[in-house]
Amino acid sequence: MKTKAQFYHAGCPVCVAAEQSVAEALDPARFDVEIVHLGETTDRLPEAESAGVKSVPALVINGQPFHINHGADLSALK
Amino acid sequence: MKTKAQFYHAGCPVCVAAEQSVAEALDPARFDVEIVHLGETTDRLPEAESAGVKSVPALVINGQPFHINHGADLSALK
Repeated sequence: MKTKAQFYHAGCPVCVAAEQSVAEALDPARFDVEIVHLGETTDRLPEAESAGVKSVPALVINGQPFHINHGADLSALK
Repeated sequence: MKTKAQFYHAGCPVCVAAEQSVAEALDPARFDVEIVHLGETTDRLPEAESAGVKSVPALVINGQPFHINHGADLSALK
């Protein structure tokens, strides 16, 4: 069974770079990566927050948050 | 030909988590990931700095730096 991962972003340039270089680099044989645009789907903000996401872009693997560089704080998306 | 990537760390807990979850998640069919302990091999600090690395853990893919969470500033390793 593949490991679930979520890549949270807000369409910012820093986010796009992280998506193209890091999120898309994950091994597709082992990971199911869901790309979530938190600026467009604000109803997913609580889910991201409860995983510990503080800013975007962020990659959550197995429920563990990894902030990749810094595009915007989650509070700026509300 | 595989894309070269460097994962720079300093053995800190934040670094270990990022290594195990992110660096090791990269697709081995597409990436050659080198793990570099900057605390032990300080002679590689200039190389990391010139790639734009400011703190560890950081993943450099194709020369582009991605800081993953925050363990320590590079200046603390000198």
